[in-house]
Order: sequence, then C-alpha cells, then structure tokens
Amino acid sequence: MAATVEEISVNRQFGGYNRRYKHRSTVLGCDMTFTVYFPPVAENGKVPVLYYLSGLTCTDENFIQKAGAQRQAAARGIALVAPDTSPRGLGVEGEAESWDFGVGAGFYLNATQEKWRAWRMYDYIVEELPALLRSAPVFASLDPSRASLCGHSMGGHGALVIGLRNPQSYRSLSAFAPICNPCNAPWGVKAFTGYLGEDRDTWRQYDACELLRDRSASSSSASLPPLLVDSGSADKFLETQLQPGALRAAAEAAGWSGATLRMQDGYDHSYFFISTFIDDHINFHADRLLAQ
Amino acid sequence: MAATVEEISVNRQFGGYNRRYKHRSTVLGCDMTFTVYFPPVAENGKVPVLYYLSGLTCTDENFIQKAGAQRQAAARGIALVAPDTSPRGLGVEGEAESWDFGVGAGFYLNATQEKWRAWRMYDYIVEELPALLRSAPVFASLDPSRASLCGHSMGGHGALVIGLRNPQSYRSLSAFAPICNPCNAPWGVKAFTGYLGEDRDTWRQYDACELLRDRSASSSSASLPPLLVDSGSADKFLETQLQPGALRAAAEAAGWSGATLRMQDGYDHSYFFISTFIDDHINFHADRLLAQ
Repeated sequence: MAATVEEISVNRQFGGYNRRYKHRSTVLGCDMTFTVYFPPVAENGKVPVLYYLSGLTCTDENFIQKAGAQRQAAARGIALVAPDTSPRGLGVEGEAESWDFGVGAGFYLNATQEKWRAWRMYDYIVEELPALLRSAPVFASLDPSRASLCGHSMGGHGALVIGLRNPQSYRSLSAFAPICNPCNAPWGVKAFTGYLGEDRDTWRQYDACELLRDRSASSSSASLPPLLVDSGSADKFLETQLQPGALRAAAEAAGWSGATLRMQDGYDHSYFFISTFIDDHINFHADRLLAQ
Repeated sequence: MAATVEEISVNRQFGGYNRRYKHRSTVLGCDMTFTVYFPPVAENGKVPVLYYLSGLTCTDENFIQKAGAQRQAAARGIALVAPDTSPRGLGVEGEAESWDFGVGAGFYLNATQEKWRAWRMYDYIVEELPALLRSAPVFASLDPSRASLCGHSMGGHGALVIGLRNPQSYRSLSAFAPICNPCNAPWGVKAFTGYLGEDRDTWRQYDACELLRDRSASSSSASLPPLLVDSGSADKFLETQLQPGALRAAAEAAGWSGATLRMQDGYDHSYFFISTFIDDHINFHADRLLAQ
C-alpha cells in the first residue's frame, strides 16, 4: 500500500511553501506531524533535503516559525524537513510529567524498556521518514538521496549520532548547541536510564563522543561527513548538559578533519542564537548537497 | 521622578540584543511589557527607531520571535521597538471573552466608554512610550526623534492612523495586511462600538480611509510621510476585514503620491508572509531614518 500523508496546512514564504503533514507512523504506532519547506525551484525539478531535528519540548513547528531558515533555503534551492521530537498521544502513564522525558523528549533513540517501547525516533528519522519522502507522490520534487542533517540541543545530539552511525546517508552534519556527551550529562542520563535501562554499555551507541572514541579505538578509516557546530558562550546549559569541549576532544582523537566547532560569544540557547547563524548552516549544507 | 523600566530578559541576536522590559504605564494604569532590538552599532552611537505595532491576539513577542526583522535591522543600524497590543491584568469584566476585543485587541485608540477607559493605546504609543524612550537612561543609545512606524493587521491600522494624525512625528509608515477601513469591517465595527460607543462620527478619527477623505475634503497640503503596504492575495481576511482597495482609492483621492500599495500573490495573513517582505520594509524605513 502506498504511504499516505495528509496536508494539514500550507503557508507561502519566500516564494516557496511550508507544508505541514500528518501521517500514521508504523514505527511509532501513532499519528505524527512534520513540516516541509519547498523552495521555489522545487516547482521545476528535484531538490535535496536538509533534515532539522528539534530540541526538548519542541514540535515540528518551532524551527519553521522561528529560525528564519527558509530565506536562505529558498535562495540556495534546498528543502527543509522538520519532524516532531517524539511520539504523541499514546497515553503512556507519566509520558507528560517531565519536560525532559517522554512527550517532546524522544532523544532520537530506539527505547528498549517495555514501557517506552513506542519511543523509536531513531528508526523514525533514519528509516521511516526518508522512506515516506521517497514514496509519497506529494514529495516527488524531493530527492532524499541527497540529504544532510542539522539539529539543536537534543536534536543536535540526534544529528551527530545519526550522522556518525550512518555516514554514507548524509552529505553533511551540523548542530546548534548539541548535547555532545549525553552519557555524562543530566538530561542524557535521565533519558537513557528511562528508555534504555541501567546498562550503560547500551547507551554508548547514542552518544556522539562515545561513538567517536569507538572509531579511535578501532582505527576506522571510513570517512565521516563534514561537520559544523555552533555553541553559545552565554548558553546556561553549556557546561553541564552540552559539553562542546568533550566533542572537540573526541573529534580530534578520531581525526575528524572535516569537523568545525565554533564558540559564539554572548549567545544563548534560544532561537535568537539559531537564527543568527542559520544562514551559515544552510550554506554549509547547500554547498555539499548541490555539488555534483 | 525619572521613568523607570525593568529589564526582564535579554537575548543576543545578529550581533545586537533583544531586550524585553516591564514598566508601569501611567496612561493605561497597569504594567506593560515591550521589547527593543538594539543593533550592533547602538554600542557606538545613537540609532533611529522603528516601532512595530502587532495585530489581534499578539503580545510584544510575536514579531520579535517570528518576523526575522533583526537581521536587516542589524545590517542597517536601526532599533526595533515592539510594544504590547493592549492593557493587561486589569480584570475588567469580559476583557478576555473575545480574541478580537479587550485583552490583546487595543486597536490603538483612546476608548471613551467608561468600562473600557483604560484602553488608551493611542496615547500609549504616541506619547508615553516615546517619552519613556527619551527619558530612561537604558535607552540612551536610541534617538526617538528619528522614528518610523510599521504594523500588521490591527497594528497596520494603528500605524496608518497614528502616522496620518501625526505626520510630523514619523519619517515613514508601512503596514502588512492592515485593516484599512475599520468603520466598514466587522473587527472594526465591534471594537469601535465597544470602545467608542454608537456615534459613528467619533470612529472616523481612527480610520485611515476616513482620515484620508477628510484630507481630500479640506484640500490639505500638509505633506504625508511615504508609505509602503503589502497585502497577500491568499489572506482569508482580505476582502471582509482588510480592504486594501479602499485604502488605494482614498490615498489616490488624497493625492498621497508617496504611497506604494502592493499585492503579494499567494501570501496569507501569517508571519510567514511578514518574514518574506520584512527586509523590504526595514530598508524602506532605514533609507528615511538614516537620511540626513
């Protein structure tokens, strides 16, 4: 049966269109929403795809409404795909008690604990959503074989982990204020304990720094996509939750020559920070996505 | 006593700062919030001011978070001042029953009906807020003697009416999807009846088209500031509430040679529309605000 999606809103912007969709997710077992920005040139041919993974408490709408990414995406001719951050509406007991666990806090992993078995955002982002973009006729103007990943905070963690584990699937990776080493950060420890259980060895596959350490240990020579990371020096989560220094050390140890890690003076964790540097990220990805 | 304001949040963006303030409004009799975006060059000297008046249901935050105006304001070196849309917290019976009347729906007028006597957003925008910007030390880098007005929907109506009644105070005016002829639009009739009473003659001072008709009748030769208006052809409120054709006819009849009224194909009433054309508006105002 062909994948079906329902368009639930459309808004023109910068000559293209933001289209918000609802579909039934087989992986998650619930209805999910996501938004695609189609640049103007999508009317005349296929355009590559930049996925944007949002942070804690966000839906598919925050980035689309606040980051100002569509201006440069229109100029460069790339599509933006903004999924939601967790399953919703399943009614799991306690799913909405915390802002950093459950609804709005999927952490882009596949849960192994029975209670949270529906939390499989890793498979949703890596497999189900790209398959939907390839198969549904409304996405005929997208070329998901040319894809890149960007994300913010928890979504920056998601972009790093998914990109490191599937380097052949993404041409470039970027993140704003990512949670770099969740095994050693309060948000990550809470999420991983709840979704994955107490065995910390199972956590490492969802931690960018640990994945890079594994590469160092195995002397892997497989190439990694280029990476751009911006963090803000006034981000109140910088040292406790985000730890960009840990990513820098792990990337250097792994010999990730294409990794550019920047610290932006005076910027915080908000979309005001993201909007300031989103053009840099769009251009970073577009240069790779549009290369022959 | 010097005017006092309390800074309640600050976020760096595009090298400048969004600073949100709270102050006690004498005119309205309640605490009010507003946000100022200071461009980077405000650290080195005085910058002119562009006021942005928001639409129904909005606070001072929608424009600041969604329009993407700070990028070009930073590039041109002008400050953005985004006030709230009505008094809040007064507890007037029924003030929150409608989304288009009472809280969030001040309509930039001075109410004459006893129950709504606190609704004096006209005086707040024309007098109290500029006086605060002139007097409070935290605004020393602003030059409110160089000011322009922009607004959206109800705020577009506000920008037009305030600019037409105080042409010497503003160097330029612009609006997105303004309510052009509120005396003949359902939103306007509801608001004016409630705030101003049944005598329609008292409504005309708050209607851009009626003010322009008065100019035509009096053969006024006083000059009007240049005006830029964008409306969207897919705006569901276009014909019933906004009526850009009425403004066009009134502006032509009044000989307003500096008025540019544009219709943007396929755009709606949302901030996606505003963000697409905000650079045009920033540049339109900056060209006048920065002229010697």
